[in-house]
Formats: sequence, C-alpha cells, structure tokens
Amino acid sequence: MDRNTLDEALARGKAERRRFESLEYVRFSDGFAGIARGTVQLPDGRLLPGYPSIGRIQSLARGLRRQYAGPFWAEEKIDGFNVRLVQHDGALYAFSRGGFVCPFSTDRLPDLLDPTVFESEPALILCAEIAGPENPYLEGSPPQVREDVALFVFDIIRGADGAFLEPPAKSALAARYGLPMARSFGRFTADDQQALGSILRQLDAEGSEGLVFKGEGGGGRTKYVTGRSNIADISLCSEQLLDLPPEYFTNRLLRLALFTDELGSADAPALERELGRAFLQGLERAVARSREVGRVGHRFRCRFRQRRNAEHFIAHLEATAGRRVHIAEGSPHREGDYWILEFERILQRMTGTLANVLAGQAQFD
Amino acid sequence: MDRNTLDEALARGKAERRRFESLEYVRFSDGFAGIARGTVQLPDGRLLPGYPSIGRIQSLARGLRRQYAGPFWAEEKIDGFNVRLVQHDGALYAFSRGGFVCPFSTDRLPDLLDPTVFESEPALILCAEIAGPENPYLEGSPPQVREDVALFVFDIIRGADGAFLEPPAKSALAARYGLPMARSFGRFTADDQQALGSILRQLDAEGSEGLVFKGEGGGGRTKYVTGRSNIADISLCSEQLLDLPPEYFTNRLLRLALFTDELGSADAPALERELGRAFLQGLERAVARSREVGRVGHRFRCRFRQRRNAEHFIAHLEATAGRRVHIAEGSPHREGDYWILEFERILQRMTGTLANVLAGQAQFD
Repeated sequence: MDRNTLDEALARGKAERRRFESLEYVRFSDGFAGIARGTVQLPDGRLLPGYPSIGRIQSLARGLRRQYAGPFWAEEKIDGFNVRLVQHDGALYAFSRGGFVCPFSTDRLPDLLDPTVFESEPALILCAEIAGPENPYLEGSPPQVREDVALFVFDIIRGADGAFLEPPAKSALAARYGLPMARSFGRFTADDQQALGSILRQLDAEGSEGLVFKGEGGGGRTKYVTGRSNIADISLCSEQLLDLPPEYFTNRLLRLALFTDELGSADAPALERELGRAFLQGLERAVARSREVGRVGHRFRCRFRQRRNAEHFIAHLEATAGRRVHIAEGSPHREGDYWILEFERILQRMTGTLANVLAGQAQFD
Repeated sequence: MDRNTLDEALARGKAERRRFESLEYVRFSDGFAGIARGTVQLPDGRLLPGYPSIGRIQSLARGLRRQYAGPFWAEEKIDGFNVRLVQHDGALYAFSRGGFVCPFSTDRLPDLLDPTVFESEPALILCAEIAGPENPYLEGSPPQVREDVALFVFDIIRGADGAFLEPPAKSALAARYGLPMARSFGRFTADDQQALGSILRQLDAEGSEGLVFKGEGGGGRTKYVTGRSNIADISLCSEQLLDLPPEYFTNRLLRLALFTDELGSADAPALERELGRAFLQGLERAVARSREVGRVGHRFRCRFRQRRNAEHFIAHLEATAGRRVHIAEGSPHREGDYWILEFERILQRMTGTLANVLAGQAQFD
C-alpha cells in the first residue's frame, strides 16, 4: 500500500496504529480506498487482508442454483471466532476479525498448532476458527471440542496477491504440515441436492453449525446453517433475551423453519420441544439468578499460558466492556501449567428489567 | 370543556372534528391540557373520557403487595378490543380506544347488547371488550366465544364526573338490565396469594387471558396475564415474525417464564412443546404460503347487519392500511341476515424476505 493511502487513512480515522508487546502494526477500523475493514499492515509492510464476510443462503436448492453455475467445495462451518495467523520476526500472532492482536489466541497458539509450516512458508497467512467451551468470546462451541479450545484452519493465503488457495492445494499443504482443518465434504454442483441434503441432515443430528460453500476457481462463497444450530444459539442466549438485538432470535427462528421446510425434521414434536425449552430454560435461569443475586450475567472461563497475556486480555475487556464485565475474585489464578481467567458479562437490560418486575413494579406497554 | 381549550386543541392538531353518518364529534388524537387521548366530545357537549391504559404486573406476589395496600377486585381480562358505548339522539355508538366511531362495533350493537339500560340511564357510558373469532382487528379471541363476536362490559361511567362505578354498583346495575359482563372473581387483598394463584392456574388451563385488578375506592388498576395467553399470542402471530415489533415476541417469552417461575406449570415438557410449536407452525405456514401464492398475510372475516357500515369499515381500512390490505373478491357478500366482509392483511416484510430467500438470494447479516 502506498504511503499516501496509509497516511490518509490514518488522518481520516479509517486506520489506527496499535502495539502489542514489541509489535507495532496498523489496523483498518473501516474499509478505505478498496482496503477491507480488518486489514492489518505489519512493520515490514506486509498486508494481512481483512477476512471477507460470507453471504448466507436460507434455501439450499434455490440458493445453490442461483449462486453457483459451476462446481463448488463444501466445508464444515465451525462455531467459533475467526482469526488470521501470521509469523513476524519469528513470533506467531493471531489477529481478530477487526484487526486487533488477540492476546488469548496468540497466547494459546503453541497448544493449538504445529508452527513448522511457517519455517518453510514464512509468508503464509492461515485463516482459522478457534472454538470450544473455554473461549472468552462466544457462548457456543462445536460438539467435537469437549474442553478448552481447538483450532480449525479453513483458508490459506500464500501469495502476496492475498488470494485464498483453492481447496485441493489448501488440503495438500495442510496434510503435509499436519495442520488441523475444518472438515471438507468434497466437490459438488448445484445438482447434488440429495448428497448435500443428507450431509446437512447428518450435521444437524451431530449438532454441527453447517456448511460453507466455496466456488471453484475463486468463485463466490456462501454459508448455510443447520436447523439445530439455531436452537443451540437460542438456548445459549435466551438469558440475554433483552440484551441482544431481538433480530438475533427472530432471524434464527425463521432459519429453523426454512431448514425444516426444506430438509424435513426426523421428529417434529421433539424439535418443537427443544425449541420451547431453548427459550424457557434460559429465561427461568435468568429469573432465578435475578432473585438470588440481583443480577443476570453469562460466565466465561478460559486459560492462558502466560499471565501477561491474561492481563492484556483483561485490559482489553475493561477497555471495551467496562462496567458490564466482572473479573472473578482472584483471577487469573494458577492451575497446573495455566493461568485461569474467569469473568462474567453482566446482562444489563435483563438485570434491570427483572429487578423491577420482581420488585412488583407495573409496566406500561 | 371550555371553548378555548377545545379551539386550542383543534388549532394545535391535538384534536380533530370527525363525522360518522349524521353524528359530528370531536376526537382527541393526543392528550392535551389534562384531557386524555381518545377523549370524545359529542355534539351536546358531553365528554366521553379516554379509557386509561392499565399497568402490567409480572410478579403476582410482589406486584399486588406493591400496588395495593387495601382491598381490590379481580375481574377476567378479555382478549378483545376496547370500545366505549354511548347513546346520542336515540342512537347507540361504539367508540374505539383512539376515539373513532367503530363502524363494525356500532353496526353489531343490536346483536350484542340489550339497549333497555339506556332508556332509564341515557347518559350512561359502557366500557366493553368486543371479542371473538370474527372480529376485524385481532387475531386472538377468548375461549368462551366460539363464533362471531360477543361483548363483555367491564366498566360503567354514570356521572358527569367520568368516574367508574365501583364493582359492586356496576354488578348491581348490570344485573338489573341483563348486561353481559366480564367475570368477576370477587374482592381480595394482597394476602390472598393462594386463592388468586389457583384462579390464575384455572384461567391458564381454560385459555383465558388473565385478570384485571381494580383497587377499592377508586384505587389503581393493574393487569396480570396467564402463561398460556402468551403462547396463544405467539402462535397466532408467528407468521408475522418480521412484521410485528420483535418486542412483541420477546416480551411474551419473558412473561411466560415469569408466570411458570411463580405459579409453576402442570406439565413442563408439554408447555415447552406448545411454545416451540407456536413459533414453528406459524412460520412453516408462512413459508408454505410464500411458495404457493408469493405472499404472506393474515385473513379476517366479520359480519355486518348493514352493507353501508361494511363500506364505512372498508373505507377506514383503505385509509389506514392502504396497499397492505386486500379486500376479498366480491366482498361484502350477503349470507342470511348479514353482509360478510373478508379481507387479508398483507405481511410485507415476511412476504418480501421469504420471496428473496426462496429465490435463492444470499443475505449478509
């Protein structure tokens, strides 16, 4: 990127200089002059392109026909958070979607990935999902990760052009270096409705989030989620009913109905009950918490290798979430080889509304 | 009301002159100088006070203690629309909450009410709920009205002061003239939790909407709804998921959880299933309609005694809902003694979103 573009972006507040330990980098907080939001410039001038957002289809048959004239690859969509991994000056860094160094992911990389690949391919960019019950960002986690977190590479950028490797080249490279990958289900065309339908029914039964489709030859990308992934989201977030944008829930309800409409449901009464319970159990939990401790929140727990990174993460939490976060007493604390961080995100609207309601106030609506 | 107040309200657009057939009246479209929204002034200067909105408690125990130091009356809350009935120049008129003459209600009064009471009490104002499956405004209807509509008086204003009669005086007057009334469950204090709890569990099982509490001696009024009335609302409105304010659904989910938290639920799995089905069946209906006819809507059917009133109502629909309403081909049509009006309210966001989704478009969210 030429010097003027960078200076103008900085001057206009579209980009900002950041520092993590000894690493100084520039992050694009907005799209600017064709540079995507989340793009990062490293000290040596290398650009880490912002990861593009992927369109959602909600009708498998019609969506695939409309989006793909030719073949596409189907890979598992992992319910985690998106990071881009790069090596700089012999150190590995994980950048968040927004272009910040993520202290948690960066700290844990030695546990999650064999770095050998970067010895022979120092300019590689790995795009990966970090997912699991002990992640500090998301309530959800995929069924195949039972504890802590795991990493799933789903895209690789090799050249300076910033283009993603085609899935076969990506798989070959991943196999050579033993990179943990998101499952690939192979190459399809829009005519393979039957095969894709049964893969999605299987993923739905397993509790997987769904599929990402990648057009061959750099074709477009789309995603399609399973019906049950919507119920899982509602179940995990129903105690945040008044704190999340209400569309969080209405969109998932509609997606669930569209999934069952198109792919059917093995047991409709069971599905209806799962959905009702997803709402009721979380809400009853929230009411109980409000009565017991006067507040409603969601608790997170994650582990760090280095105390210093836990402190970086706490600083980030306090900068972004402020009073809405309670760091647990005595956190981080040592357990075996790790520093355990526990904190609670306070759900302010649920806390306030339930406090008023349970105090007997009358609402006018 | 003095002339200046009226002139100023008219000048400021807080009130407007309206006409229904030969009746000319003034309607307050906003609160003004202590005059409530929905207040109506008749040609003889009589004032029809706007009906006050009633606060909702969502915790029975705490709510009643907080709202009522003394005794209160508990009456059934009817799931219908609110009208105020008056006689003027020997004719009966029904005014809506907003202060408009309702052509439907006014047309049907001879079927719904014995007008004898107005012969001996010409200045009486009856506040009533009109409810039933054949009403032109609401999707819902109470279990005790199996067809057409019925009328339930719940308040009576006798004096020029505009005060509501105390429940005993109201019941006595209603009994004398055989007025159809909302059920009264008697007089209670905040200590009668047990009794009120079992009444509400009974109402919940019957599918009734809930209770309205009226403090003795003109004390405050509050309402409390049953858990299942929330499921019924969701079930009737889930095909409007994207057209109603999303709070319509989130508020009802929270009320349901608060009801079961406080009053329990006979059969939790059944309740969970009812809730899930309430969402899924309506949404699947909407998806099916979109695929079949390319639009999603809610159909209404109601009957009129006089064709002219049906035409007044159609004019009102077209003025207020415009292109969002389709009057059925050949409506109103004669059936026996009535003119049947059928129309469909088009759900524009559901129609548009489902059309795009089912055409295979990708959404970025």
